[in-house]
Amino acid sequence: MSPELTARPEHKFSFGLWTVGNRGRDPFGEAVRPKIEVADMLRGLADLGVYGVSFHDDDLMTFGAPESQRRAELDAFKKTLDETGLVCSMATTNLFYHPVFKDGAFTSNDPQVRRYAIQKSMRNIDVAAELGAPIYVFWGGREGVESAAAKDTRDALARYAEALDFLAGYVKDKGYDIRFALEPKPNEPRGDIFLPTVGHALGFISTLEHQEMVGLNPEVAHETMSGLSFYQGVAQTLWQGKLFHIDLNDQRIGRFDQDFRFGSEGIKDHFFLVRLLENSGYAGVKHFDAHAYRTEDVEGVWDFARGCIRNYLALAEKAREFDSDPRVAAAMSYTGVPQLAEPSVGPYSTEAAAGLMDEQFDVDSLASRGFGIEKLDQLVVDHILGIA
Amino acid sequence: MSPELTARPEHKFSFGLWTVGNRGRDPFGEAVRPKIEVADMLRGLADLGVYGVSFHDDDLMTFGAPESQRRAELDAFKKTLDETGLVCSMATTNLFYHPVFKDGAFTSNDPQVRRYAIQKSMRNIDVAAELGAPIYVFWGGREGVESAAAKDTRDALARYAEALDFLAGYVKDKGYDIRFALEPKPNEPRGDIFLPTVGHALGFISTLEHQEMVGLNPEVAHETMSGLSFYQGVAQTLWQGKLFHIDLNDQRIGRFDQDFRFGSEGIKDHFFLVRLLENSGYAGVKHFDAHAYRTEDVEGVWDFARGCIRNYLALAEKAREFDSDPRVAAAMSYTGVPQLAEPSVGPYSTEAAAGLMDEQFDVDSLASRGFGIEKLDQLVVDHILGIA
Amino acid sequence: MSPELTARPEHKFSFGLWTVGNRGRDPFGEAVRPKIEVADMLRGLADLGVYGVSFHDDDLMTFGAPESQRRAELDAFKKTLDETGLVCSMATTNLFYHPVFKDGAFTSNDPQVRRYAIQKSMRNIDVAAELGAPIYVFWGGREGVESAAAKDTRDALARYAEALDFLAGYVKDKGYDIRFALEPKPNEPRGDIFLPTVGHALGFISTLEHQEMVGLNPEVAHETMSGLSFYQGVAQTLWQGKLFHIDLNDQRIGRFDQDFRFGSEGIKDHFFLVRLLENSGYAGVKHFDAHAYRTEDVEGVWDFARGCIRNYLALAEKAREFDSDPRVAAAMSYTGVPQLAEPSVGPYSTEAAAGLMDEQFDVDSLASRGFGIEKLDQLVVDHILGIA
Amino acid sequence: MSPELTARPEHKFSFGLWTVGNRGRDPFGEAVRPKIEVADMLRGLADLGVYGVSFHDDDLMTFGAPESQRRAELDAFKKTLDETGLVCSMATTNLFYHPVFKDGAFTSNDPQVRRYAIQKSMRNIDVAAELGAPIYVFWGGREGVESAAAKDTRDALARYAEALDFLAGYVKDKGYDIRFALEPKPNEPRGDIFLPTVGHALGFISTLEHQEMVGLNPEVAHETMSGLSFYQGVAQTLWQGKLFHIDLNDQRIGRFDQDFRFGSEGIKDHFFLVRLLENSGYAGVKHFDAHAYRTEDVEGVWDFARGCIRNYLALAEKAREFDSDPRVAAAMSYTGVPQLAEPSVGPYSTEAAAGLMDEQFDVDSLASRGFGIEKLDQLVVDHILGIA
Repeated sequence: MSPELTARPEHKFSFGLWTVGNRGRDPFGEAVRPKIEVADMLRGLADLGVYGVSFHDDDLMTFGAPESQRRAELDAFKKTLDETGLVCSMATTNLFYHPVFKDGAFTSNDPQVRRYAIQKSMRNIDVAAELGAPIYVFWGGREGVESAAAKDTRDALARYAEALDFLAGYVKDKGYDIRFALEPKPNEPRGDIFLPTVGHALGFISTLEHQEMVGLNPEVAHETMSGLSFYQGVAQTLWQGKLFHIDLNDQRIGRFDQDFRFGSEGIKDHFFLVRLLENSGYAGVKHFDAHAYRTEDVEGVWDFARGCIRNYLALAEKAREFDSDPRVAAAMSYTGVPQLAEPSVGPYSTEAAAGLMDEQFDVDSLASRGFGIEKLDQLVVDHILGIA
Repeated sequence: MSPELTARPEHKFSFGLWTVGNRGRDPFGEAVRPKIEVADMLRGLADLGVYGVSFHDDDLMTFGAPESQRRAELDAFKKTLDETGLVCSMATTNLFYHPVFKDGAFTSNDPQVRRYAIQKSMRNIDVAAELGAPIYVFWGGREGVESAAAKDTRDALARYAEALDFLAGYVKDKGYDIRFALEPKPNEPRGDIFLPTVGHALGFISTLEHQEMVGLNPEVAHETMSGLSFYQGVAQTLWQGKLFHIDLNDQRIGRFDQDFRFGSEGIKDHFFLVRLLENSGYAGVKHFDAHAYRTEDVEGVWDFARGCIRNYLALAEKAREFDSDPRVAAAMSYTGVPQLAEPSVGPYSTEAAAGLMDEQFDVDSLASRGFGIEKLDQLVVDHILGIA
Repeated sequence: MSPELTARPEHKFSFGLWTVGNRGRDPFGEAVRPKIEVADMLRGLADLGVYGVSFHDDDLMTFGAPESQRRAELDAFKKTLDETGLVCSMATTNLFYHPVFKDGAFTSNDPQVRRYAIQKSMRNIDVAAELGAPIYVFWGGREGVESAAAKDTRDALARYAEALDFLAGYVKDKGYDIRFALEPKPNEPRGDIFLPTVGHALGFISTLEHQEMVGLNPEVAHETMSGLSFYQGVAQTLWQGKLFHIDLNDQRIGRFDQDFRFGSEGIKDHFFLVRLLENSGYAGVKHFDAHAYRTEDVEGVWDFARGCIRNYLALAEKAREFDSDPRVAAAMSYTGVPQLAEPSVGPYSTEAAAGLMDEQFDVDSLASRGFGIEKLDQLVVDHILGIA
Repeated sequence: MSPELTARPEHKFSFGLWTVGNRGRDPFGEAVRPKIEVADMLRGLADLGVYGVSFHDDDLMTFGAPESQRRAELDAFKKTLDETGLVCSMATTNLFYHPVFKDGAFTSNDPQVRRYAIQKSMRNIDVAAELGAPIYVFWGGREGVESAAAKDTRDALARYAEALDFLAGYVKDKGYDIRFALEPKPNEPRGDIFLPTVGHALGFISTLEHQEMVGLNPEVAHETMSGLSFYQGVAQTLWQGKLFHIDLNDQRIGRFDQDFRFGSEGIKDHFFLVRLLENSGYAGVKHFDAHAYRTEDVEGVWDFARGCIRNYLALAEKAREFDSDPRVAAAMSYTGVPQLAEPSVGPYSTEAAAGLMDEQFDVDSLASRGFGIEKLDQLVVDHILGIA
């Protein structure tokens, strides 16, 4: 293992302003850390070798402030991006914090709120375009219900699709080079959130007018909350050509949204995840959407940020070692992993069907094969632990 | 509430042979109940006013038996269907019980197993067609992994799609009037099963060659295991036009696959579910895929079956009462439920965008609206409890 | 079902000031409702027929304010209690909101914080005594870790016990008529909280110096988060003589701490819970520790409070009806419920052991008994739905 | 990291006969592997350097067979123990597989079943004594309910305690050198199992007549199913002096009972667990209660067994390295870990209370301390990954 596990911009790591900027407020306690100025955050991230930053409109430009102030805040941000060499890799709209969104944004029962949410998004899409952000994320944190009586889900999905179709139309009309990435989450802060998993979002995208420009931004914590395998979800997303962005953090199953340091909980899951990202040709940023424990002061925030990067790079190196270990190749072959890439029957034809119907199978003999997966999986653990 | 909560065939309730036939075997214990003969099951179900029955190939025709015996078993089944007036409402392949499928069926690493699984399905599709079953279900219970090293998920999904495309081709080529319904499940018996939720299956269907003939068979227990809302999943499935069949039973979140009597656990969830099914125009069967507690003898099995039906009918009646209660209509109106059916902005146009950009919103005023959902939801509880 | 489902003081319902006072702040959004003055809360609760109120020190007396102001706030509270006839049924210390407790209170790694937490508790125990509160609750929401490296759990439990022993000593020394009730929670806001379930707290109590004055305050939401049965936990707590107080609300398994209106989610669980409380002779208050959905304005807050009470009373009436239904008695008898109250073997003696060793059992015959639980459980559902 | 990660008897690893003997039967599939003879299992385990084996009565002696056959089976087992040098480190009763226990064993509603269960346990306690097993485990897998109507939990707990008191009396009367270890589990195969967690069992033990001879056998999978921290549960068990035995395996939260290879899932949790066991002075066996994936043949079973041991030993070595790393000691000190071992206030006295009441705390200053836990926790991850 190389001693050097620090980032360079070509690694394409990014952080949200709200991550290193998180002040430790939670449902049972107030903020514990002072505000870090945006410019200081950017400089700190640049010092860590980070490539990009992302933002919500309200992170950057004071909500409800006069346009002149918002422009000044934006210009200051652009200036610091220039100074630090960081790129703006993603933008998104805050459609959850203000009480106006308490019943939803694109799916609020109040049509005025829905229109306001779309307008707020358009305004920030303009900002995203100005900043050159290639990805615009939609996390519909308030799009949901506590009581199923409060919305007809089919209406809600229709409104959700309507908003995305309208905004995609806007991007195309304006000629912006921006793609959309939906970020699923099963619950919290709502009882049930619409589009709860990467799967539901993939299904939903197939109904959209401009579906080619809409993909996903899966998040470790969100998928893990329900105990679903994040790795499997990302793999399906990649298979469907829809991995546009990714939110890396950590989480235990069946708990509140924890947003822990990447690599601090699900070590084995993340080994597979990093290996998949590295081997798949995924060219987007690796975006850390996490925050430091509430026990930490500002120094701890930077420890946290360094840890996210360090764990990703360590796992990437382990994945390379794993894939170049001849014992692994032999075990993979024994398990039949390469065989799964071969077609089973090929495309349908009457002749192919007839041929297959005539085949004789020695079922008991096929059943007696051992697949050697305990041995293969132990090689995974060995590489993770560094004892291979 | 009417005293009469018993089924008539026009209610379109159905049961799988393996449900009333369940003998109480579990991972820690052997069978506790004697085998019920298929003919006796059908007569018992017909006596309860049931409409249809469903089967796995191996429920009906002895696995590995000579064709003459299998034909005799099938003919006996057809005869009893005729006698009882029951229809065969769904068929499916057992691709999970025999050791040959221990590593998967359509996604086994062994190409011979994959071919055998497709052949086994074709043979039973022929049986389904002979029996007039309109729906063929695919539950890929063994399509998954314990270790992510053992399969490249993208290959696995490609093989899964290949198998379904081939089988859909077969159905079309044969001119069978059969549609496919995929049944998602997150885990058990595999560590992670591919297509873990209705969402993932909806996304997957959008990649299939004959996607118009492939929909879903969502199951209460499977979706509930991960704590996702079954109601919300069914609503999205309906919205996407993909509810082809449904498996009704009951389950607690975060536990093994319990397959409890419908209506015995998640009473409020099921009120919303039944209301949705009844109001949506869903015309398929209501299929109970559940079994009696292991404490029960044969008499308890029939108590169980009656209970499933009784709870569905009681909730359907409560849903009708709820929807005709003027206080409910008033509360819905206050909450703005009907407003969610109105377009927010309509289709995109440059003019519509410009107009929206110019709108002024009184955000604080919009934020002050109370949505009255506690009152509305309490009316739900009142109707469920019969105290409205 | 009687039309009258409203509270009277003799029902002994109570609410925390923070429940109707909850302003809808959550991790992703700010407060949505205005502050309700304490006196208005008390009057509103008295109007609903409530018996008691509970408070954290900081709910009542401004944190860090001069003693004169705190005394004035306390006196105003006492005056309104007198006016409304409400009693102060429980008090507790806020050891979680201020940043000083970010690493824990009784188990903070910082000894000064631990001493401060004990002092803060003593001061409020004095207030509790002045107000006549018979129960003092300890919810150790910050007593835990995100990383197991950060505390030796055995030290943490020793400090926890030390604090409780000291405070119990204080109560005894002062001659206060107060008992302690520990409130377990598995996680949130900490990654893992010490004493995560009623079980762990019961085990812990057995190590305390003054264990006779320490019992539990189980909460629906906290126990349900982990998917454990709240009913079973309360039953064990009663069996061990340790049910000193109870927090009623509602929650879905495997999610963030939802604190929903009592009876709005787990209807069947709550039927059993209310039946148990009503039949057990439990004489403490029924304390609602919940809050209105964030979609609600102040009117919705009172709808919420009425709903909690209504659901408890409705379930209590259903429990009475269930227990007086002769079909239920017959089904219970068939299932053998009364037989479980009979000793199996009695106390050990050499003779009893020898006799038992000589007994012959017809195991297959015993195994053939059906327990009729599907029928019995359906009677439960029938009574809940009001269709019995 | 030393290349040598194989067991020696002094490591005190043990396996159950049912673990390497597991044939891969599950709820949806039949056995996939041939039966391994008991003698072959013992020889295989001895070859791996294992110390002990454990058994259920029915693993060793055919259920219902004549006493002569059972004696011959037992004698054969003793002979092979002698040959291999393995010790019998634990015994337990199978009170779950036969249909007679479908409603419970010690808590069956049928008093005859309860008496039979106690007799069956006494007979096997005699065998355990003959074999020199120091620990007798009680896993009450069938002690529970699907419907809370079917048992009064308080009666069930009373019967449970009665059975354990009787059996403890028997052990004492016979002069056997055996201690009891209760094994908690939340659910599966029952809907809710009594004594669902280590906490509930610790609470229950405090009610027993011979509580000094009753402790726990916590199992990774059982505690993890509910998302509780196994590490924290074991730590409390140790703190209460009740860790008599431990079941090591692996599991994902919120799923069926998976019994995976130890160290194959929760790597970070197990680092802390192994460190705790190694540092605590725990002198019992490390018992693997797990089984090979169902994809495996007999060769895979031994790969599985080797992997369990290898992972334990690797984590133990990492724990030693962690504890001897001076950067870890510095980080621990910064976090204040050693400070938690210091008393906060000492035992109660009027003077101590008065002194504490007079203390002044600079709360804001105390609140400003950062605890450095991100840095400390990253050192944990570094040591696990071997990149420290």
